[in-house]
Amino acid sequence: MNPGSDMWQLILPLSIDVIMSIGAYFFTLNLIPRLKDLFVKANLYGIDMNKRNSLKIPEALGVVTGCIFLVTMFLFIPVPFTDYIFKNENFPHNEFVEFLAALLSICCMLLLGFADDVLDLRWRHKLLLPTIATLPLLMVYYVNFNSTLIIVPKPLRVWLGYSVDLWIFYYVYMGMLAVFCTNAINILAGINGLEVGQSLIIAISIVIFNIIELSGDLWKAHRFSLYFILPYIATSLALLKYNWYPSKVFVGDTFCYLSGMTFAVVGIIGHFSKTTLLFFIPQIINFLYSIPQLFHFIPCPRHRLPKYNKDTDKLETSVTVFKYSDLNSSGKFLMSVFRTIKIVQWQKSSDDTVTCNNLTLINFLLINIGPTREPKLTLILILLQVLCSCLAFVIRYPLASVFYDI
Amino acid sequence: MNPGSDMWQLILPLSIDVIMSIGAYFFTLNLIPRLKDLFVKANLYGIDMNKRNSLKIPEALGVVTGCIFLVTMFLFIPVPFTDYIFKNENFPHNEFVEFLAALLSICCMLLLGFADDVLDLRWRHKLLLPTIATLPLLMVYYVNFNSTLIIVPKPLRVWLGYSVDLWIFYYVYMGMLAVFCTNAINILAGINGLEVGQSLIIAISIVIFNIIELSGDLWKAHRFSLYFILPYIATSLALLKYNWYPSKVFVGDTFCYLSGMTFAVVGIIGHFSKTTLLFFIPQIINFLYSIPQLFHFIPCPRHRLPKYNKDTDKLETSVTVFKYSDLNSSGKFLMSVFRTIKIVQWQKSSDDTVTCNNLTLINFLLINIGPTREPKLTLILILLQVLCSCLAFVIRYPLASVFYDI
Repeated sequence: MNPGSDMWQLILPLSIDVIMSIGAYFFTLNLIPRLKDLFVKANLYGIDMNKRNSLKIPEALGVVTGCIFLVTMFLFIPVPFTDYIFKNENFPHNEFVEFLAALLSICCMLLLGFADDVLDLRWRHKLLLPTIATLPLLMVYYVNFNSTLIIVPKPLRVWLGYSVDLWIFYYVYMGMLAVFCTNAINILAGINGLEVGQSLIIAISIVIFNIIELSGDLWKAHRFSLYFILPYIATSLALLKYNWYPSKVFVGDTFCYLSGMTFAVVGIIGHFSKTTLLFFIPQIINFLYSIPQLFHFIPCPRHRLPKYNKDTDKLETSVTVFKYSDLNSSGKFLMSVFRTIKIVQWQKSSDDTVTCNNLTLINFLLINIGPTREPKLTLILILLQVLCSCLAFVIRYPLASVFYDI
Repeated sequence: MNPGSDMWQLILPLSIDVIMSIGAYFFTLNLIPRLKDLFVKANLYGIDMNKRNSLKIPEALGVVTGCIFLVTMFLFIPVPFTDYIFKNENFPHNEFVEFLAALLSICCMLLLGFADDVLDLRWRHKLLLPTIATLPLLMVYYVNFNSTLIIVPKPLRVWLGYSVDLWIFYYVYMGMLAVFCTNAINILAGINGLEVGQSLIIAISIVIFNIIELSGDLWKAHRFSLYFILPYIATSLALLKYNWYPSKVFVGDTFCYLSGMTFAVVGIIGHFSKTTLLFFIPQIINFLYSIPQLFHFIPCPRHRLPKYNKDTDKLETSVTVFKYSDLNSSGKFLMSVFRTIKIVQWQKSSDDTVTCNNLTLINFLLINIGPTREPKLTLILILLQVLCSCLAFVIRYPLASVFYDI
């Protein structure tokens, strides 16, 4: 980065972004309680299964934070371009295009997420919709960069050479990144505050990474990412206040989709999609662990959240019950692997009935630490997310220098 | 337009647009019946008050056509740019920006419209939201054109000169155009097929206007408009099939917002916002006629649609009843004007109670033609829209040459 004018181009818009984010935080804080009843009236509510009472908790409040996030960004759009606007010269259309495409993808995902919460769409839609929502973004990537080369890690260069051009597969990868990010947060969910909590840790990790990289050559890309992530963090923080144990509002698929798409967007446009993925370690583990149920090798109940014990007010491992003989050979093989490495609670009775824990990271944790109160469980999972982010930074910096020339 | 390569740039992308629109039409036709039940299950339904039965009719299906419209446009995005993409040179970022901003505004409006249908937002939101949704568009207008000059009609040039720079007020006007377009369609509604019918006539008028202007200097702007309007017409036509009397689905505020914003967007980006407004003559009349109720000079019931007579199966004028002494002086004045020019049905009984028709174009029509069956009434209103479009073309072409040098 050049000192002087570049420094100014960095600090001024980011300061305004911070100020607008603070405004967005208080606005969200103020708006959620006022809109809550509208959601219940519109039949958008859920009953918290992990509580003694059965109040109607408004659902899909992510649409409120999402809209405020978008509006903040709409109002922010002119800020990074004021210099060009007043000088009226050489407007950087290519940077502006990135802004608009990013907002379009996020807005589209917010719409689809809200439609999902309202209409309860099917699984295939959940995979298709984020792919569609990323199309404008991929188009911008093609037009602005179209760099599909990846640098090969040193140990593999003997076979693959210095770099490999992934060509169209790089675009497939980016499309799948959006599908993964949106759904991965959505399936590590079910206890108060977890969706927002984990998303905030990921977002804060991205911010730290961006700030570190601001001193590098690609500082503009990381500044771009900060523009988006800061208001995202502000609105999500306000949401967390109402979503924390005991939840007064639920965030809905809307929030998970919004979050996942925001992370995918800044990762793609900011050229750090692989680092973004590094911040998803718990989500990746949860996804891999869930595979036997997600792909129906073993039965998957509608809800896999832990079981609430009213007497102790603690959460316990939830289970799925099935006949062993009903499994196909892939299912039998997968589960034998899981049992060998001792990551499932597996009881087989004499009549061939198997009782197995639902394969989620939350249940896995409960197997190991025993019944836990809900807020403590959320805190442990968030702490785990923090630890994984630390690990991600270790992989990204000290470890990467072993594999790449930095 | 230059012959040869320009011609090719016109016909090729437009042909692909037509083909994709036809695909979108059949896809919509196919998808609506399959999604209908999801809407009813999600509590998104209405009872048709103008029918003998009281079936649950799914509401807000505009979100389905809107999403298909958006996806069609997403897939279409690369088409007009293929030339630049393959030659890899001088990519026209400024044109691409228009595309993205237009889609962002439409997507945002679709989200807000759907949120309105689900959550039943308040009036002030309905005015605020379209303004926000146009922000990215206005920004693009500023960056790409920033032409805020308007040519003064000949008779006024003695005082105002050849042109007037409206400066910031031109942006206020464009923002208000979006607010007007979205809400004007929304308040000329209430009988089966009318929202979609009138929108289609407006859209077709825009298409005719664009085709006429393709031979002019601004052909690129009109080609841009056609890109958007053709898939819009296709998806709306499919919707009309289910929304026509007797409606199997309702379109919701979602559809009205989507339509209004689409028209505003092509009008603004295509530089023909004043002509767009000309196609809104029935909506403008309906708006002006509604003013006493919209601004609460006289009482406005929640629904102003005509009254259904079960015995005759016909629609009759609906009325609002109030004490004359309850009106404030503005209300009394306005209504005395309306009575003088004989455009209201006004009965005042001896005890000061006034019975007055609800001030909508539909009721006004019913006063003049008497009770009418619903499909016939819709047809008459659509015919009126067609006649007004003809009038608009007369104003735009022969008449404009009187006031402007063409």
